[in-house]
Amino acid sequence: MKRLPVIIDTDPGQDDAFAILLALAAPQLDVLALTTVAGNMGLAQTTDNARRIVELAGRPDLPVHAGCDRPILRDPRPVPEIHGETGIDGWDWAPARHPPRPEHAVDFLVRTLSAAPEPVTIIALGPQTNIAMALRRAPAIRDRIARIVFMGGGYFEGGNMTPAAEYNILVDPEAARIVLRSGVPVTAVPLDCTHATPAPVGWSETLRARGGVVGGVVMAACAGMMEFFEIYGNRKYGTRSRPLHDAVAVAALLWPDLFTGRLCPVDVECAGELTTGMTVVDWLRQTGAVDNCLWLNGCHDPDAVYDRMADLLAGLPRL
Amino acid sequence: MKRLPVIIDTDPGQDDAFAILLALAAPQLDVLALTTVAGNMGLAQTTDNARRIVELAGRPDLPVHAGCDRPILRDPRPVPEIHGETGIDGWDWAPARHPPRPEHAVDFLVRTLSAAPEPVTIIALGPQTNIAMALRRAPAIRDRIARIVFMGGGYFEGGNMTPAAEYNILVDPEAARIVLRSGVPVTAVPLDCTHATPAPVGWSETLRARGGVVGGVVMAACAGMMEFFEIYGNRKYGTRSRPLHDAVAVAALLWPDLFTGRLCPVDVECAGELTTGMTVVDWLRQTGAVDNCLWLNGCHDPDAVYDRMADLLAGLPRL
Amino acid sequence: MKRLPVIIDTDPGQDDAFAILLALAAPQLDVLALTTVAGNMGLAQTTDNARRIVELAGRPDLPVHAGCDRPILRDPRPVPEIHGETGIDGWDWAPARHPPRPEHAVDFLVRTLSAAPEPVTIIALGPQTNIAMALRRAPAIRDRIARIVFMGGGYFEGGNMTPAAEYNILVDPEAARIVLRSGVPVTAVPLDCTHATPAPVGWSETLRARGGVVGGVVMAACAGMMEFFEIYGNRKYGTRSRPLHDAVAVAALLWPDLFTGRLCPVDVECAGELTTGMTVVDWLRQTGAVDNCLWLNGCHDPDAVYDRMADLLAGLPRL
Amino acid sequence: MKRLPVIIDTDPGQDDAFAILLALAAPQLDVLALTTVAGNMGLAQTTDNARRIVELAGRPDLPVHAGCDRPILRDPRPVPEIHGETGIDGWDWAPARHPPRPEHAVDFLVRTLSAAPEPVTIIALGPQTNIAMALRRAPAIRDRIARIVFMGGGYFEGGNMTPAAEYNILVDPEAARIVLRSGVPVTAVPLDCTHATPAPVGWSETLRARGGVVGGVVMAACAGMMEFFEIYGNRKYGTRSRPLHDAVAVAALLWPDLFTGRLCPVDVECAGELTTGMTVVDWLRQTGAVDNCLWLNGCHDPDAVYDRMADLLAGLPRL
Repeated sequence: MKRLPVIIDTDPGQDDAFAILLALAAPQLDVLALTTVAGNMGLAQTTDNARRIVELAGRPDLPVHAGCDRPILRDPRPVPEIHGETGIDGWDWAPARHPPRPEHAVDFLVRTLSAAPEPVTIIALGPQTNIAMALRRAPAIRDRIARIVFMGGGYFEGGNMTPAAEYNILVDPEAARIVLRSGVPVTAVPLDCTHATPAPVGWSETLRARGGVVGGVVMAACAGMMEFFEIYGNRKYGTRSRPLHDAVAVAALLWPDLFTGRLCPVDVECAGELTTGMTVVDWLRQTGAVDNCLWLNGCHDPDAVYDRMADLLAGLPRL
Repeated sequence: MKRLPVIIDTDPGQDDAFAILLALAAPQLDVLALTTVAGNMGLAQTTDNARRIVELAGRPDLPVHAGCDRPILRDPRPVPEIHGETGIDGWDWAPARHPPRPEHAVDFLVRTLSAAPEPVTIIALGPQTNIAMALRRAPAIRDRIARIVFMGGGYFEGGNMTPAAEYNILVDPEAARIVLRSGVPVTAVPLDCTHATPAPVGWSETLRARGGVVGGVVMAACAGMMEFFEIYGNRKYGTRSRPLHDAVAVAALLWPDLFTGRLCPVDVECAGELTTGMTVVDWLRQTGAVDNCLWLNGCHDPDAVYDRMADLLAGLPRL
Repeated sequence: MKRLPVIIDTDPGQDDAFAILLALAAPQLDVLALTTVAGNMGLAQTTDNARRIVELAGRPDLPVHAGCDRPILRDPRPVPEIHGETGIDGWDWAPARHPPRPEHAVDFLVRTLSAAPEPVTIIALGPQTNIAMALRRAPAIRDRIARIVFMGGGYFEGGNMTPAAEYNILVDPEAARIVLRSGVPVTAVPLDCTHATPAPVGWSETLRARGGVVGGVVMAACAGMMEFFEIYGNRKYGTRSRPLHDAVAVAALLWPDLFTGRLCPVDVECAGELTTGMTVVDWLRQTGAVDNCLWLNGCHDPDAVYDRMADLLAGLPRL
Repeated sequence: MKRLPVIIDTDPGQDDAFAILLALAAPQLDVLALTTVAGNMGLAQTTDNARRIVELAGRPDLPVHAGCDRPILRDPRPVPEIHGETGIDGWDWAPARHPPRPEHAVDFLVRTLSAAPEPVTIIALGPQTNIAMALRRAPAIRDRIARIVFMGGGYFEGGNMTPAAEYNILVDPEAARIVLRSGVPVTAVPLDCTHATPAPVGWSETLRARGGVVGGVVMAACAGMMEFFEIYGNRKYGTRSRPLHDAVAVAALLWPDLFTGRLCPVDVECAGELTTGMTVVDWLRQTGAVDNCLWLNGCHDPDAVYDRMADLLAGLPRL
């Protein structure tokens, strides 16, 4: 099988961890590298987390490149109250054995994409600072990116940080605007989609029971993070099931048939008093703007998503 | 039965016409007067339309007061492309036999509310210019308004003029902000609610078949306007059923048990690049702002709404 | 001499007091009434101050109408730190003997202007809420206003409340925009002009020494207010002379030959992050907008302004 | 004499050309390289212009690095109507004999500054895109920049593109905000300063008459560009003298004693309706923000500036 080359830009985050593990487990994908960005946690922490995750997955060889330590225009907004002190609380992580690569993520993106034998898909799981910076630094890479699949935003669902804005977009709305206006094909996996794709109630127990290869360490870590994540969700939303936002973005890339959406114009509000960071989706095509984004707004079968996800995760590390 | 005193502020519009007729037909309501505002059409037209509607309903005595001929801060935005040349196209209306009252709507509101023996409910079916002006001109009337029920805005549904803004709010966002921040209890009947309350497919034929008192003229007019309205809806949304937005607002006042909603903080974006005129609903109470608005977001039984509406309309004129 | 009919809209303020006294003393002007607005102080205080001032001037007959108690869209911003507890600190004022008229200022403006035998000049010394409300409530009065002369704004001088905004405009930028876009001829007397028109150093002593009619009470009050005003100026600007902003606006109406300016397009920023309330002056006519405002930016002879002012004030009360 | 190491970031432009030539002629400065940016003209043109200018100056060895081809967030705004088709119209330029270096300007800045034995001064003559990108890409270079001297903005003078905004800031306001908030010491040479520093009337003739070394080619080119520049100035401003904006920035670095200014808080409006791109200067320190910028607002002796400039230019090429 021809595997799809991807680079994952990320700020782990428990749900980033699931997304990364899922991508590493998926036979359809060839993960070239991880690039990290300030977001859920500061850059040093998200970079260390990325290293721990790839090592847990049995991929210590996978390059991790640290990128921007803050959004393009605005101040960083780490959210330890959501993700815990480490960002990936819920598991007793072993320290990373290998450091990240010395090359800056933006330079890595520019160099790698410029030289890539075929266009690469980028999976963006945090604020899109690195990707926007690379696009501005080297506009020609636009043609070397097959697609940018990002988790972020919300239109029918509103936001999770403000009534209008979702975290990843709110943190760096200018970066998201640059990406959406870049001309690169974009798939958005917003709250509209992830809230329609909740993990089954008690999925942490399913993961733990499932076990897995090599003593089931990956599954145990996943179960622990899922439990941590469920507790926050219960407190904020009063629901017993919770979507693994970033993992849904990888799922949407792997199994597009499970999701619904529409190609339409999408932009980001950067100047509102109450709405800065909102993804403004022209679902009814009222503006006459160009269709620049495949906006996913639903999931046919959430249980199938998580069943398939568990199947793949249970195969980690791939021996 | 004690009847609820109401004043209807309106910019007819076919759906305003239905709302007014429904209010006049409802035994629960005591309509004190209509005030008109520039909106769907210019002020002279909306005022003339209001006269025609009350005369059709057999209520030539009902006072109509013309109000503001433009929004507080912005330019008027009439939409004949939606409502036809007269705003109430679809019926061959008799000319109004009586002129509107000479007193300006804002003065009327201030005088009437100041002197009202009990607090009055205001049903706002257009841009909220008149109401905002009255609240600024005479802040004490705040305590003489029982509630403001307005049709306008949208949060889960987005907008119908821009991806973020609904017509009534977009036209005068500052007025809507003044109303929402006034401290008066507010019920919003936004697109979230009206789109969940579509008229049954072919309702115009139901109305026509139903007939009504005195030769069925009211029902014939309603059927004609509904047909006109359906055609536009089909063209824009590709649906065969269409909500009568303003009439749903009156329905929500009459039959609150048919609708769902939540009391939460609501404000209006007045400074966005892409989002001006958006109603920003803090559905999850993330901002800590005061719960100032009962936001209706659904309808249990749309068919019941239109059945009851047809029953009442068929009783017009009340003899 | 044909006298120019004027209405003064005001929020006293020491410099408003000077402006009112100057207008009452000037034989060229026929002051029809004062209307008051929330601004430097709350409405009750500014209205009481207006009564005290007209009574001090020997004009207890002059109608004072209280108007809006807050800006159109925003919260009030009283500044007792500038003007003292009463707003006209610096003199031991006698209590007002007469109450304000019961008619609201906006109603008074609409009624009086509608019926005026000749167009009336409005001198606006505070936030322009009342005037904007009257223009929206009764657009036809536009043709019954000869000119609006307002103190406010700044372009070459920046602002006195924020780096971009002057107090009167910052408090109600939407009102100022309505006035500037109304089509009424407007003369702006901004900080650009008033800072070029400082009172001579030690002018309070000049006033006190000068005395005046009837025991010199008016001059003593002026001297006291001037002293209070000078102290604040010294503290904030480190200068020993200080402009009487509002009085300069009346001076510009009385003696236009003493001032310089240009007719050009002027608008108000209502949506900036750092610049809301700024008067944006298209001095070089770069925008192609309509010339809507005579923008005064200088004074040929500040000493002459204050000499003439002292001469007129010394004639109060006019016997 | 210890020479000050500088890098010039530029978008030539006739006045950029003067600035570059002046910097190359000044014995106090050690120009390490030129970096180019899209601004007055597109990137290819400004880069080619930069090459022509260094070669004219007898410095074909000087590295020129092309940078960003557009602002961070907004569309490019070339202004051939001001600078002519080439951007440096007014002289019959020889084609560049050497290409720019292959390394991108942002990479060059990051690499050079990171390795610089002593902090380097950056002279920014166009939109500040490259510098902002470098600061975001490699925050640690902040401590390797001695100072950023930029030509741009205006506060007391308003703008030259809109009533509020000067060209360099308007084109990339986000970049200017990043620079001003970076913590690097900044000197602003805004229109407030350059308009106070006009070239003497007929300065083009002075330059031509003056001649210079090696056949006077540099002086002839300067005279030709100056003539072109004077014609535009005469047309727009009706004045016979005109400031060489960018050259004044270099002059302010060379001869600080000739200029006046104040260290105070400066920021850029990025969200205004009428004021986007305005430099908001807290001249009176009303905001409590940090003093981040030395804002030059005047010149003691404009003739001295241009006399000294002519003296230095006449020494080019330095043999």
